[in-house]
Amino acid sequence: MIRQIALTVRGWRSNTRAVKILMLGALAGAMLASGAYLRPTVADEGMWLFNDLPLAYLKEKYDFEPSPGWTENLMKASVRFNSGGSASFVSADGLVLTNHHVGADTLHKLSEAGRNLYDDGFLAASLEDELRAPDLELNQLVSIEDVTDKIQAAVQSNMTAAEASRARQAAMSVIENESLEKTGLRSDVITLYGGAKYHLYRYKRYTDVRLVWSPESAIAFFGGDADNFEYPRYCLDVCLFRVYENDRPAKIEHYLKFSTTLKNEELVFVSGNPGSTNRIYTVAALKHLRDTWLPYFMNYLRRQEIMLQQFGLEGEEQTRRAKDDLFSIQNSRKAVHGELSGMQDPEFFKAKRQREAALLQRIKEDPQLRTHAVAWDKIAAAQNRRAALQGMSPSINGRLFNLAETLVRMAEEDAKPSPERLREFRDSNRESLEQDLFSTAPIYADLEQAKLADSLARMAERFGGDYPLVRKVLSGKSPQDRAAALVQGSKLFDVDYRRALAKGGKSAIDESQDPMLILARLVDPRAREIRKEFEEIQEVERQAYAQIAEVLFAEEGTASYPDATFTLRLAFGPVRGYQEGGRSIAAWTTLGGAFESEAAHGAREPWKLPESWHKAKSKLNLETPFNFVCTADIIGGNSGSPVVNRAGELVGVIFDGNIQSLAADYMYSAEQARAVSVASLAVMEALQKVYGAERIVKELTK
Amino acid sequence: MIRQIALTVRGWRSNTRAVKILMLGALAGAMLASGAYLRPTVADEGMWLFNDLPLAYLKEKYDFEPSPGWTENLMKASVRFNSGGSASFVSADGLVLTNHHVGADTLHKLSEAGRNLYDDGFLAASLEDELRAPDLELNQLVSIEDVTDKIQAAVQSNMTAAEASRARQAAMSVIENESLEKTGLRSDVITLYGGAKYHLYRYKRYTDVRLVWSPESAIAFFGGDADNFEYPRYCLDVCLFRVYENDRPAKIEHYLKFSTTLKNEELVFVSGNPGSTNRIYTVAALKHLRDTWLPYFMNYLRRQEIMLQQFGLEGEEQTRRAKDDLFSIQNSRKAVHGELSGMQDPEFFKAKRQREAALLQRIKEDPQLRTHAVAWDKIAAAQNRRAALQGMSPSINGRLFNLAETLVRMAEEDAKPSPERLREFRDSNRESLEQDLFSTAPIYADLEQAKLADSLARMAERFGGDYPLVRKVLSGKSPQDRAAALVQGSKLFDVDYRRALAKGGKSAIDESQDPMLILARLVDPRAREIRKEFEEIQEVERQAYAQIAEVLFAEEGTASYPDATFTLRLAFGPVRGYQEGGRSIAAWTTLGGAFESEAAHGAREPWKLPESWHKAKSKLNLETPFNFVCTADIIGGNSGSPVVNRAGELVGVIFDGNIQSLAADYMYSAEQARAVSVASLAVMEALQKVYGAERIVKELTK
Repeated sequence: MIRQIALTVRGWRSNTRAVKILMLGALAGAMLASGAYLRPTVADEGMWLFNDLPLAYLKEKYDFEPSPGWTENLMKASVRFNSGGSASFVSADGLVLTNHHVGADTLHKLSEAGRNLYDDGFLAASLEDELRAPDLELNQLVSIEDVTDKIQAAVQSNMTAAEASRARQAAMSVIENESLEKTGLRSDVITLYGGAKYHLYRYKRYTDVRLVWSPESAIAFFGGDADNFEYPRYCLDVCLFRVYENDRPAKIEHYLKFSTTLKNEELVFVSGNPGSTNRIYTVAALKHLRDTWLPYFMNYLRRQEIMLQQFGLEGEEQTRRAKDDLFSIQNSRKAVHGELSGMQDPEFFKAKRQREAALLQRIKEDPQLRTHAVAWDKIAAAQNRRAALQGMSPSINGRLFNLAETLVRMAEEDAKPSPERLREFRDSNRESLEQDLFSTAPIYADLEQAKLADSLARMAERFGGDYPLVRKVLSGKSPQDRAAALVQGSKLFDVDYRRALAKGGKSAIDESQDPMLILARLVDPRAREIRKEFEEIQEVERQAYAQIAEVLFAEEGTASYPDATFTLRLAFGPVRGYQEGGRSIAAWTTLGGAFESEAAHGAREPWKLPESWHKAKSKLNLETPFNFVCTADIIGGNSGSPVVNRAGELVGVIFDGNIQSLAADYMYSAEQARAVSVASLAVMEALQKVYGAERIVKELTK
Repeated sequence: MIRQIALTVRGWRSNTRAVKILMLGALAGAMLASGAYLRPTVADEGMWLFNDLPLAYLKEKYDFEPSPGWTENLMKASVRFNSGGSASFVSADGLVLTNHHVGADTLHKLSEAGRNLYDDGFLAASLEDELRAPDLELNQLVSIEDVTDKIQAAVQSNMTAAEASRARQAAMSVIENESLEKTGLRSDVITLYGGAKYHLYRYKRYTDVRLVWSPESAIAFFGGDADNFEYPRYCLDVCLFRVYENDRPAKIEHYLKFSTTLKNEELVFVSGNPGSTNRIYTVAALKHLRDTWLPYFMNYLRRQEIMLQQFGLEGEEQTRRAKDDLFSIQNSRKAVHGELSGMQDPEFFKAKRQREAALLQRIKEDPQLRTHAVAWDKIAAAQNRRAALQGMSPSINGRLFNLAETLVRMAEEDAKPSPERLREFRDSNRESLEQDLFSTAPIYADLEQAKLADSLARMAERFGGDYPLVRKVLSGKSPQDRAAALVQGSKLFDVDYRRALAKGGKSAIDESQDPMLILARLVDPRAREIRKEFEEIQEVERQAYAQIAEVLFAEEGTASYPDATFTLRLAFGPVRGYQEGGRSIAAWTTLGGAFESEAAHGAREPWKLPESWHKAKSKLNLETPFNFVCTADIIGGNSGSPVVNRAGELVGVIFDGNIQSLAADYMYSAEQARAVSVASLAVMEALQKVYGAERIVKELTK
């Protein structure tokens, strides 16, 4: 699955707000798709800004001219899961359709021993039965404003990288706070084209989000890890939430109606939030990924995977508790493996190197651009600094530690004016931060202990058992015993305790004898040092990529799209099958195919359909399209994105990319990479005939 | 399980004859058990040489005086599986009893799609039905001779480490060849006490080995990976082979009779081949293990584990093919994790450091020993060299590559006199080498391809995609595509082709266009360079540890045992339960307990007993002891070791150590570490009542 996750774990950001492992996005596939640095050379490539759509191309190639109303409706009907993922409004009363694997985080948080919503599914019989998610935040993009001039004006040419980084962040923070105060909307300044442009995105936030319907994991993730990133597929990877305001279903002006058709070769559009691409990367930056960062990251993912598998062996309840994390890790491991394999193909670098050499040759002959060549050297030097810092942050996994770290930092940062704080602690982000910090989602002591023990052991391995900070952290105990003492002694499980600490501010935090806070205070100085160094490197890269972007604008014109940043983009392409190993892969599978696939696999896990499907089989129209592929350019973060036709009607929901969209093969057959969707027709058929969800069907078809 | 495996993978030896991942042995537990460097301070500790048993201790503590006949019978009834593991003769007609997991390698090799001896078990109805193993070699130790003087005389004090290493190896080779010519017996010179002593071991070799009986994996490995290294247990982890000579059952003079009793607190003896311990290691060497080697090795194990799991997802037959490797890897991963955890406990190093400091202080005050203090510095320097070389060998996994490498090296080495060759190519080892090289065991192209692709990718990650050797190895292809081409183009699957190449010698090998041979020729020069450097380091360490051993002999007397070297040792201790978390763990479980454990786990995998056991339940004496624990000092390689009582009768077969024998807890409660055995009473009961093996029972009780 192309997992909903968006942020990057490079450098200091190895602990995330969502306490999740993050995906880099289907990096290599994406890069391979890109002929030049930015400009699409392959037809229909691109993740376009809603305020800069390729209108001329759409008109010329597809004779399609989206009206302003078409575009506005699609943009405002699109929803971002702030936890990492995409979705859409599908009713006037706030129904939100996304992937089962995007909702999984919430399904797990709403489950407990003996009540497994993830595996067993859920259907709210009435509005009153809809279950409130403990910490979801949904964002609806309402406007985009170019603020490049204001940001660039804050950075003076005589500043060091550290000064420039601080000045830029402060300028962003000021704009965001002003916007929040003026509009009341969530306001984020987004860095585009590697640092050449800055746009202010304003979002309406929804924080009362309730679960309406979810199918069983056996059909949502039919084929499991084995079939992940494969095609053909038979997955009902969807679920429904509803946004509320003032304890009543929110009134939604812009939403998508279900299409009643799906046509081969029809042009479709994907509106979602691709997480992160690196198509502007230089050869030096890609080499760093291939030879240094990704191998290191893969070791980390494998380590987490084995640790979670081992934890799950302890019992059925442990298996349930570890499932969400395990899925995320396995999904990332499979995706990153595909990316790394693609980059290890010598052909990939050969092509990349030739293009870069040719470009550098041309700009050296151009008196205007000549001075920009130094940007490539700066990027190369930055990679060496990255390599030297790799693994140097004393990062620690686990929800409890993450809470402790947030509390410790928040107390310290809040003593400063908002523009000078670490970025996530700016005033304009406070609501989102607290949404997470005070979540009522369960925290499992045994799982926390397993994660923490592994983190402490990993720290000891990275720095050596005699490193002073390691000795302090372990405090004379083995990693296992120390983890047990930390988890068993902490009161951070309790939301009220966290609220009291946050309210008490720096003095309350400093005085707390909670062992997890003591640990966070212990490692924070070093973690901040490393983060600061990474932010300096990022600033160097930002300035260099801004120069490179200027070169590319000059060379190739501006009809291009920037690298993905987990913000709303439009991709497009026809519904179309492909050739693989001499076989024709049809554009879509059918509901009947799911039963055939189950039989072909002897109905063994993970190819065993739920009982509900067997019961409903005779009622189902087995010819209904189930999953389909199109050529649109997508990546991690696009999970749950609505797929619409020219009429703006919902034909599907993105949930995966095929293996060719990750692997090196792609270079030889760009024709094979496909985005994989659940057909809206299948969603409707299942809601009616498998799940008997009359209330929902009525609302969707109203 | 304490896995049968014996050799070390440190340094160059990452490809082994048996194409298996190797275990370091339950290192940390072992080290923790050792109060001093060599001398046991904990009662009943020790893996004693058969020619230097602690007779005074046995007499004093247990009032037991083994007669020469008792010792000779036990030594000659003990059997070594050259593939890594221990066993015993249990009938006059050559029956050999070992662990199911020691025989697993052969069970898999005798299986094929639709005929899974590992999972489904096997019973030969008659002699004619016994199945010949494709490549087993069993060794029976017949004599031990001290050759220290001869070896030491070959090394001059003015030699460099490289020269000394060569001279020592040549001297060993000469002694071995002379012995082989004189006696016709397999002759191995063994390095003891880190290099202070050298003994010549002579073995009778059995190479016609046939499978007689094996239970289902569901009972042999009841509880699976989850229960591995845990206790209480319910595993019938045994199987029976028979050695043949001249196509008839071999006549065996020394064998063990099954005991008809098992008594709590009775003294028992374990006669087997512990693989490798490092109790003599200095603090610097242990730090290298903790901070550098073991973390690296764990990453490698996790990588292999995930790769094999992913391969198994492709189908049931793939699962079967990968099972033996996957078990080995999981077993090693769990054991090494326990070792590393033990070493990460600061208390472990604190104690070790204090003892070393005190020892160094004492010898500095001793005019005789003062000069020996430099040995510790030499070891420390050697660790830095080890760290610098770590991961530098272009090692490649997979049976086909292993065969190619052996052929390439054999052709090159055979041009030299035997004493000057790489050690495994000496004349006296040729029969064993060919036993493996010309094995008829199946080689699965798909599994080979998966392993090779992963190896090539790992090489690219370690050296960087632009490293010249990597570029040559990949030859313009991605790791996956290159692996596919190599495997699909190779004829090394064919035993006759391998025989022809071996017979053709260097010219045949050099001219072969088999892509796997081309690959082996390509990487061999660099692999040899790295191996040479490692052998130099080992020589430095050998000389230093010999000095350290002298100090310890002087300090602590000579009533000690050397570190394990996969040669026959005797351990002992009482059958005894232990306390854990306030609970009393009884010395043995019963057959009835297996049914209770199955029920307690809801009969879900891997706690599901085979159908044969349910059918036989009413006939079984459910009070029969099943698995039991004793305090004997064992480690990886001891798997399958016979456990005998004072009368020399077989009471059990070692198959595991509990988690406390690996983990740091041990330091605080030496009382908890236990060796785990299958009771011979359970074997007999199952043979009679579950498997109806009357022919075998009759032979065993004759």
